[in-house]
Amino acid sequence: MVGIGLRPVAALVVIFTVQDGNLQVLLIRRSAPPYQGWWSLPGGLLSPGEGPDEAAVRKLAEETGVADVYLEQLYTFWDLDDREGVAVSYFALVDARQAHLAQRQEWPPAWWPVDGLPPLAFKNERVVEYALRRLRAKLEYSNVAYSLLPAQFTLSQLQRVYEAILGRRLDKRNFRRRMLSLGLIVPTGGRAVEGRHRPAQLYAFKERRPVLF
Amino acid sequence: MVGIGLRPVAALVVIFTVQDGNLQVLLIRRSAPPYQGWWSLPGGLLSPGEGPDEAAVRKLAEETGVADVYLEQLYTFWDLDDREGVAVSYFALVDARQAHLAQRQEWPPAWWPVDGLPPLAFKNERVVEYALRRLRAKLEYSNVAYSLLPAQFTLSQLQRVYEAILGRRLDKRNFRRRMLSLGLIVPTGGRAVEGRHRPAQLYAFKERRPVLF
Repeated sequence: MVGIGLRPVAALVVIFTVQDGNLQVLLIRRSAPPYQGWWSLPGGLLSPGEGPDEAAVRKLAEETGVADVYLEQLYTFWDLDDREGVAVSYFALVDARQAHLAQRQEWPPAWWPVDGLPPLAFKNERVVEYALRRLRAKLEYSNVAYSLLPAQFTLSQLQRVYEAILGRRLDKRNFRRRMLSLGLIVPTGGRAVEGRHRPAQLYAFKERRPVLF
Repeated sequence: MVGIGLRPVAALVVIFTVQDGNLQVLLIRRSAPPYQGWWSLPGGLLSPGEGPDEAAVRKLAEETGVADVYLEQLYTFWDLDDREGVAVSYFALVDARQAHLAQRQEWPPAWWPVDGLPPLAFKNERVVEYALRRLRAKLEYSNVAYSLLPAQFTLSQLQRVYEAILGRRLDKRNFRRRMLSLGLIVPTGGRAVEGRHRPAQLYAFKERRPVLF
């Protein structure tokens, strides 16, 4: 038990990437109790003088080496442990090609496909589920996907990212029409060769920072 | 200073209503230091065993007597005070006709128009601003307004609520078309007399619980 209003406060980060056509999430293998040997989301108690937002940015950088990506506060959970702790959760989107996972024997990080997660410590599956729902909703009305793609990309690449997140195939023609009409992306003038097809037009996000509605 | 990760955790509720064509927010006059005599949002430290969501529901009921209204977790702030406290904020929408403000000499509550707020304790104006932005955005893609209206209402009444929240006039014809095409409201078959015009059709929200996208 803790005093009135004084609670352990942690930050938790759901870090997503798309790799091999699958949406994946970063997990850390716990090397100490409680839940020793289990996997959990990156995170931990706030350091003195540190706010939850700063803790989330720190964790993201520590585990993946990246900064300056899509990172958004998600929800504050409070019943994930039995110590009346409060967990401020975040989700981040990282381009796997730019991420360099921390190399550690203890508490090693690894990417896991969201549709094949192991049992998670501290009811973290609730946090992942919530983040996934928010991410899927955001796809509809924001430029959230920019963090998962290189600066220039083809519409096919963009579609594969959307399909990985949504977990289903999309109609190519409808997808293209919708993407272009939303005004989130612009053609760069460049072209890329994909397989044996004729070179495909390259696009870029108008903004490579969160545009929220 | 507090220990690693142990922080004061409070819940704060931005309670909105529409009255006299104006969007208003509930404030409490502080009867003790710090910020004695200042106005602030309803809220306070969590009680032992209580989560932030429960504290928000409790505060809402204590101050307005209502439950079962639109209440949503908003954002967790951490730098509103100088004690490294964490404040989990919420916003709620209340039909003023159903609210009964707590009658107290000390810490009295009162409605204030959002465009004429007094200086607020604990940087609470940042929380109100954030809530207002979220509320305005939500109007575009949710049934959030249901909590501000009686079970049956005319399209004119609905329009006045939207105008109060957005702080600007809306074109009547466009508003009606959009409301009907969204599928959020349905005609009830009833009619109401408004002024000297012919009786106006009554509508109801399809769902009187949060429908989020």
